[in-house]
Amino acid sequence: MEHKFINQINPGETIEHIYLVKDPILRSTSRGDLYIAMFLCDKTGQLNGRIWQASESMYNEIPKPGFVQIKGRSEIYQNNLQIVVNNITAADSKKINIEDFLAHTDKNVDTMWQEIKRIIGGIKNKQLKAIIDAFLADEKLMKRFCVCPGGMSMHHDCIGGLLEHTWNMLRVASAILPLYPDVQGDLVLAGIFIHDMGKTEELTYDTAFSYTDSGQLIGHITKTIMMLHKKAEALAAKGVTIDENILDSLGHIILSHHGKYEFGSPKLPATAEAFMVCYIDDLDAKMNQVTRLIEEDRGDSNWTCWQKPLETKLYRKRIE
Amino acid sequence: MEHKFINQINPGETIEHIYLVKDPILRSTSRGDLYIAMFLCDKTGQLNGRIWQASESMYNEIPKPGFVQIKGRSEIYQNNLQIVVNNITAADSKKINIEDFLAHTDKNVDTMWQEIKRIIGGIKNKQLKAIIDAFLADEKLMKRFCVCPGGMSMHHDCIGGLLEHTWNMLRVASAILPLYPDVQGDLVLAGIFIHDMGKTEELTYDTAFSYTDSGQLIGHITKTIMMLHKKAEALAAKGVTIDENILDSLGHIILSHHGKYEFGSPKLPATAEAFMVCYIDDLDAKMNQVTRLIEEDRGDSNWTCWQKPLETKLYRKRIE
Amino acid sequence: MEHKFINQINPGETIEHIYLVKDPILRSTSRGDLYIAMFLCDKTGQLNGRIWQASESMYNEIPKPGFVQIKGRSEIYQNNLQIVVNNITAADSKKINIEDFLAHTDKNVDTMWQEIKRIIGGIKNKQLKAIIDAFLADEKLMKRFCVCPGGMSMHHDCIGGLLEHTWNMLRVASAILPLYPDVQGDLVLAGIFIHDMGKTEELTYDTAFSYTDSGQLIGHITKTIMMLHKKAEALAAKGVTIDENILDSLGHIILSHHGKYEFGSPKLPATAEAFMVCYIDDLDAKMNQVTRLIEEDRGDSNWTCWQKPLETKLYRKRIE
Amino acid sequence: MEHKFINQINPGETIEHIYLVKDPILRSTSRGDLYIAMFLCDKTGQLNGRIWQASESMYNEIPKPGFVQIKGRSEIYQNNLQIVVNNITAADSKKINIEDFLAHTDKNVDTMWQEIKRIIGGIKNKQLKAIIDAFLADEKLMKRFCVCPGGMSMHHDCIGGLLEHTWNMLRVASAILPLYPDVQGDLVLAGIFIHDMGKTEELTYDTAFSYTDSGQLIGHITKTIMMLHKKAEALAAKGVTIDENILDSLGHIILSHHGKYEFGSPKLPATAEAFMVCYIDDLDAKMNQVTRLIEEDRGDSNWTCWQKPLETKLYRKRIE
Amino acid sequence: MEHKFINQINPGETIEHIYLVKDPILRSTSRGDLYIAMFLCDKTGQLNGRIWQASESMYNEIPKPGFVQIKGRSEIYQNNLQIVVNNITAADSKKINIEDFLAHTDKNVDTMWQEIKRIIGGIKNKQLKAIIDAFLADEKLMKRFCVCPGGMSMHHDCIGGLLEHTWNMLRVASAILPLYPDVQGDLVLAGIFIHDMGKTEELTYDTAFSYTDSGQLIGHITKTIMMLHKKAEALAAKGVTIDENILDSLGHIILSHHGKYEFGSPKLPATAEAFMVCYIDDLDAKMNQVTRLIEEDRGDSNWTCWQKPLETKLYRKRIE
Amino acid sequence: MEHKFINQINPGETIEHIYLVKDPILRSTSRGDLYIAMFLCDKTGQLNGRIWQASESMYNEIPKPGFVQIKGRSEIYQNNLQIVVNNITAADSKKINIEDFLAHTDKNVDTMWQEIKRIIGGIKNKQLKAIIDAFLADEKLMKRFCVCPGGMSMHHDCIGGLLEHTWNMLRVASAILPLYPDVQGDLVLAGIFIHDMGKTEELTYDTAFSYTDSGQLIGHITKTIMMLHKKAEALAAKGVTIDENILDSLGHIILSHHGKYEFGSPKLPATAEAFMVCYIDDLDAKMNQVTRLIEEDRGDSNWTCWQKPLETKLYRKRIE
Repeated sequence: MEHKFINQINPGETIEHIYLVKDPILRSTSRGDLYIAMFLCDKTGQLNGRIWQASESMYNEIPKPGFVQIKGRSEIYQNNLQIVVNNITAADSKKINIEDFLAHTDKNVDTMWQEIKRIIGGIKNKQLKAIIDAFLADEKLMKRFCVCPGGMSMHHDCIGGLLEHTWNMLRVASAILPLYPDVQGDLVLAGIFIHDMGKTEELTYDTAFSYTDSGQLIGHITKTIMMLHKKAEALAAKGVTIDENILDSLGHIILSHHGKYEFGSPKLPATAEAFMVCYIDDLDAKMNQVTRLIEEDRGDSNWTCWQKPLETKLYRKRIE
Repeated sequence: MEHKFINQINPGETIEHIYLVKDPILRSTSRGDLYIAMFLCDKTGQLNGRIWQASESMYNEIPKPGFVQIKGRSEIYQNNLQIVVNNITAADSKKINIEDFLAHTDKNVDTMWQEIKRIIGGIKNKQLKAIIDAFLADEKLMKRFCVCPGGMSMHHDCIGGLLEHTWNMLRVASAILPLYPDVQGDLVLAGIFIHDMGKTEELTYDTAFSYTDSGQLIGHITKTIMMLHKKAEALAAKGVTIDENILDSLGHIILSHHGKYEFGSPKLPATAEAFMVCYIDDLDAKMNQVTRLIEEDRGDSNWTCWQKPLETKLYRKRIE
Repeated sequence: MEHKFINQINPGETIEHIYLVKDPILRSTSRGDLYIAMFLCDKTGQLNGRIWQASESMYNEIPKPGFVQIKGRSEIYQNNLQIVVNNITAADSKKINIEDFLAHTDKNVDTMWQEIKRIIGGIKNKQLKAIIDAFLADEKLMKRFCVCPGGMSMHHDCIGGLLEHTWNMLRVASAILPLYPDVQGDLVLAGIFIHDMGKTEELTYDTAFSYTDSGQLIGHITKTIMMLHKKAEALAAKGVTIDENILDSLGHIILSHHGKYEFGSPKLPATAEAFMVCYIDDLDAKMNQVTRLIEEDRGDSNWTCWQKPLETKLYRKRIE
Repeated sequence: MEHKFINQINPGETIEHIYLVKDPILRSTSRGDLYIAMFLCDKTGQLNGRIWQASESMYNEIPKPGFVQIKGRSEIYQNNLQIVVNNITAADSKKINIEDFLAHTDKNVDTMWQEIKRIIGGIKNKQLKAIIDAFLADEKLMKRFCVCPGGMSMHHDCIGGLLEHTWNMLRVASAILPLYPDVQGDLVLAGIFIHDMGKTEELTYDTAFSYTDSGQLIGHITKTIMMLHKKAEALAAKGVTIDENILDSLGHIILSHHGKYEFGSPKLPATAEAFMVCYIDDLDAKMNQVTRLIEEDRGDSNWTCWQKPLETKLYRKRIE
Repeated sequence: MEHKFINQINPGETIEHIYLVKDPILRSTSRGDLYIAMFLCDKTGQLNGRIWQASESMYNEIPKPGFVQIKGRSEIYQNNLQIVVNNITAADSKKINIEDFLAHTDKNVDTMWQEIKRIIGGIKNKQLKAIIDAFLADEKLMKRFCVCPGGMSMHHDCIGGLLEHTWNMLRVASAILPLYPDVQGDLVLAGIFIHDMGKTEELTYDTAFSYTDSGQLIGHITKTIMMLHKKAEALAAKGVTIDENILDSLGHIILSHHGKYEFGSPKLPATAEAFMVCYIDDLDAKMNQVTRLIEEDRGDSNWTCWQKPLETKLYRKRIE
Repeated sequence: MEHKFINQINPGETIEHIYLVKDPILRSTSRGDLYIAMFLCDKTGQLNGRIWQASESMYNEIPKPGFVQIKGRSEIYQNNLQIVVNNITAADSKKINIEDFLAHTDKNVDTMWQEIKRIIGGIKNKQLKAIIDAFLADEKLMKRFCVCPGGMSMHHDCIGGLLEHTWNMLRVASAILPLYPDVQGDLVLAGIFIHDMGKTEELTYDTAFSYTDSGQLIGHITKTIMMLHKKAEALAAKGVTIDENILDSLGHIILSHHGKYEFGSPKLPATAEAFMVCYIDDLDAKMNQVTRLIEEDRGDSNWTCWQKPLETKLYRKRIE
């Protein structure tokens, strides 16, 4: 049966679908009756859920966090829509369609992946090529790279978001590198391909997007440069030595690509290539963020609501 | 006779050339003899000049500032090269080659100008087209636009620098606009073409680059938006009305293209187009600045000297 | 019938008055019954309004936003006062007293306007006088100038607020100019009179205070300097030329009067007159803001609540 | 004999005058001959002084720092004017005119002092009056108050500068207080009179302006509030109790009058009176600073040189 | 009877205990019936309290703020626990155990006090010793010093918190002074003992922690240095003169111990001793704050919730 | 023969010693004669050196940079001491005493090294112990660790400086850990031992202190965490697995020990242990810096000259 999305539920409907349950809690009313409060979620939003006449064993069976199959009914309570649940069980994992719960890039993953490989396939420097090939040969990592979100909330925060962001940055770089002949294109392309690879270890995205413990303690910038060095060591073990100059020029792009100390870069850009990657990253992120904020704002005025990270509202009336 | 550039003068040479004179001053030695101290300059640098046994009338004849024909000889004095001048006269203006004194873009001005016209010729929105055409029809302004420097010192600080910067920004925009289909390309291209037009009134570049009084009091951002509105009023007088929405969307790009209040923008970017112009402007400026700083640094280490505006040295060892 | 102010309504009263309606929305209860939720407002505050047993046609008749004549009753619901509306119609515009809805300066507008004209009447410089007279002769603009608020929220945010602020700044300038004989008083007075004139285009104040689209995209500082230049061009067309030095000195006061880049000034003060206008503007704004915050704070302690823009509470115990 | 000011000495003059000597040092030439290097100063500047064929006893007789009577001759050496001294003795203190060495306010001290007393004489609050009278009765302090500079370099850095600054602030306050009827004028006037009193202990100005050790360790803001409390305690000992509310409201003006933490205020303004004193202080300081920078700049362009503390050049062309 | 702590009340319990009442307010329902809303608090939290069928005289008898003896019952209302009160009277002050209402250091006050006296008893410099002894002899002050909180919320915000913080800082100083032999230990120890003494006047802690009016207007740093000077004056009156150098070195530690202007220090550290006190203060405060935030966070993840003042979550998984 | 230190050379002395030569340059006088200009340096300072009547082959023989044996004579030229060199040869490397050229910790390296091993020998956690032992077993690294400077200029900028700083931090930690029982001492001690280990790769110190290319591109923080992970991988290869929790808690201390993003930390402290290491690092660095600045300042006033990084002068008068 097709999923019923949270943002499409009206009052008075019968609900028999799978949702992600969050923060279930067992409470008692003033008369001593037990009930369960929780949130029922999918990628479009969340609603309060209530189970009246609950029991402790019922509570214990709810996966925390996890997916549940419910039977219930939508109601308005004190002006808010909620779902009164009559029956709840852990969902059959075969019936869960993860894409109902996690937003997904609207681009075709395989197409993007092929175009990425085509663009970085053009790298001529042998050592950089060796490094790139070592990454491409790491199937487990590449698989994660193709699904990982690009971030938690600011931009490209969807399954495949990291891939989409990297893909578009590579396309921008390909388009403008001919206009800057002094810039070493191979370094720029290799730098873009690898620059956020550590996000595959910083973020989890099994049932919802969140940071790993290790991700929060170490951060994706440091994780990325450690990945790079492991690949270089593995190559060295096979007799392919990477010059320190090349390894450090590439590493420097990773370490400086946030552009400012206050954005968590431990180094400021000090090469033309590092500056270019930093600008392309910021441009592509901001274009994605601005476009999405304009699309998603629900009002119908010419302006979106106030966007704190941009310190402005956004104007969305088009000129035609 | 060919000009002898300042940075090519060795000790012990006879000098009979034209230089720009700066800060001439009449002084007396402890024995009461008068002498003149001054700087002799061209686009490659400056040297101290001295006229011993000077007189007040000799001093009065020196244009301040201006070009002088000198006869003299280069000497080392206290470890510094200087020019002892025996004869000085105001230079014959026909013999002055202004390009010896002001750095000039190394790109072909006409080629850039034709490509600019080709790119903005692709604008389809009729009102934006009318505005652009009004600028193109202002021959006096376009002539200044083709020679004006892009700035005083940071980037594109040469004759034709504003043209080169605008040209390259338009090329970057043309290259990446297809990758951002939601962004209104006509607005971006028109915005780039006009964005720094006020620099033609902010800067003078007759004998050297400097700010006009009006430029310092008002600034090129405000001057640019006033130019835009004058063009719109002139069009209105001819019966071509520009919608407020279009005029303000274009004006907003001008007002916000420095991206931050602390860089003198009175508005922060609030449209996708304003963000894109702001990023392209910054990217192209920084690429020019970084490339030039690397080229011009005289040391022979892998690093340039400390670059205060970038808060770092620049690494210039290439990977091949 | 006299207006019943929102902040004077008690539970259990019959309400038959005109209010400004905001954000009306048609919803259905869990039983499928339609109802309308909205805010009912005047200058003293707002209350929730509810229409039970509503219909779509009833909803369509409500002006959005606009003034409505209601019949209803005030009730406490979940500890909050709300108005249950039985009947709602668009209000007869003749019966609307706009001053019930928009706060108004408590000073006499005409008196202030006469005093402004008297003070700037003392300007002796002929060119500045010509500019001032051109503004005074623009009746439509002067009419707006006399009603426009001084801002959205921080200070002088009331009908006539811009006039009051300008008036008081002129009075302060008149009082202290004799103490600073080197400062050119004519420039200061003309600068103050014009400095915020663009707010008449930045703000709307028909039913409530808000920004125009153009105001948000361009800002009142840029709008003001464009007004000034239009007046100068109109004078030039009549043969009255304004020296660039005078026009730019006056324009510079406008562009720098916020004093800092981060407050949206594209120029920092660079003349004694610009510094003086900037300080008087800030002083008068802050005095108005502080006085009003102290007056309006509802608590009865010696301190107001925390004032975020001032980073402090305010102490209001007086010494006598 | 009249003093010969440093900035009026030409090469080749015989010099027999008194100067302030700074940093005298005994050195030997490569041939082993001893000589003394030092600076000779007055309020208009300083020059290098040299004594050739010096001896250790000659060196020991020079006061460090102090005033010396010299005989010598001005010379140009390596393009710089210097004084070759043939004879040097400690100056007869009766012959020293301290005003040749320390810049002095160009206003009449007694007139300002009388006007200050007149203005603060208008304070009606009895407790504030008692505090003011306690300060006025402290003759030793008032004497220092009348000569102390207003600062080291930014503004009012001259003998009598603190008095002039306080006097002008009181005049500004008197002029504008009637325009702000909610502001408690007695507090403002008392606050201004006392606000910088601690500078009399922070600065020394016997032979040149400098900070005392105690001034640098403690600062004038803290010293001022301690003075205030000592006066209050002395009054209490005589049976005149000052209410805590009054003492703290006055103290708060002192502690917050720099307006921002980064300017060394340990408190931000939290009363209308504190805001007003803070603005008047800043306005008067800036007017003095700007006027003086414009006057003293030696160039003849329309702009002064770059003023680092103001982050701009200053434009000084007047409109008439 | 033992106190029933707020955070231990379950629905459906009979409550007959003493609580601190906050913000009581008399309201009427839509039917015109009066009721009283209030908060009932102790050191573990607060709950809504309601008295239905209230009267104005009942309301008047409630101390504001103060302690009340209530009879009532806990209920869930709209998912929140509240207390319905049937009977309320001002509490018998003998039955109030203040420690139920104000958090208290979990260290032994007397032990800490003895150890503080032991450590500062080791000060050898006679003048510093005289100052310390003057503080120790001020019994009233020392009594307050032993109960005063260390702050309002950030760290050591409990009865005895100031003592605990000072005690631990002295222990840290004692432990590390031997490692820094150039640092004058006597100054460090005396500085620590006195550094926050003014908090005894800045804070009140009778029924809850809050700032005094004087505390907010003047601040504890200024109050502390004024205390120090009063002690020095009292000693001087007895013939014990404190050298200016010593008094100012000690005063400087007080004035600079927040380390930065933006934290309210009017002076930056300028002696080795001031730097050491500043670091020890910050270290001990942060250790207390971090430890407590980790302990008190109620979640069961490896991370606490976001800590705004630290700009991070805290990780609390231990390594064993 | 004993070295003659630069800061002990007087005019007129014969010089036959070894110096480090910097920036040698071959120039010609105005008469066409060749001469060599250079700096002659040791750890106490540098002087100008001149070789008159030089030749190109003479110039080519000078190591750049490197040590030279010179014969010459000290002279005063234009008030500056310089060395006129008659003979110059590359120095015999056996005769070079590197400690004449690079400042050296005044503590005993071996004693410190033994104490470090003793302190970290107390670590009980087996996994941390394994990591520490892996570092200790890396003889080449430990050798570098014992000579590496602690920084370029701010603090501990001497041979053995890194060791001294680490040693003292471990002593401070040992002294205060008992006072903070909740803090995991093993993590703190291990974190301190490793925290700056990457400086051994960031800095070179063969003839003078400078950054390596790799050091500037990557930075010591990233280099340190990569070292840590290599050790952990090597242990894993031997079957000793380090828990991710432990590795990341230790890594987090490294990444956050500068405490703020603007100091190059890519992570802010998020554990009690990371806060403690960060504070101890800063405290020890500042104590070293302040003590040294006070010692080395040459003036004889109570204050050092202005210390830009500390934004203050330092007061050095002691209390006894």
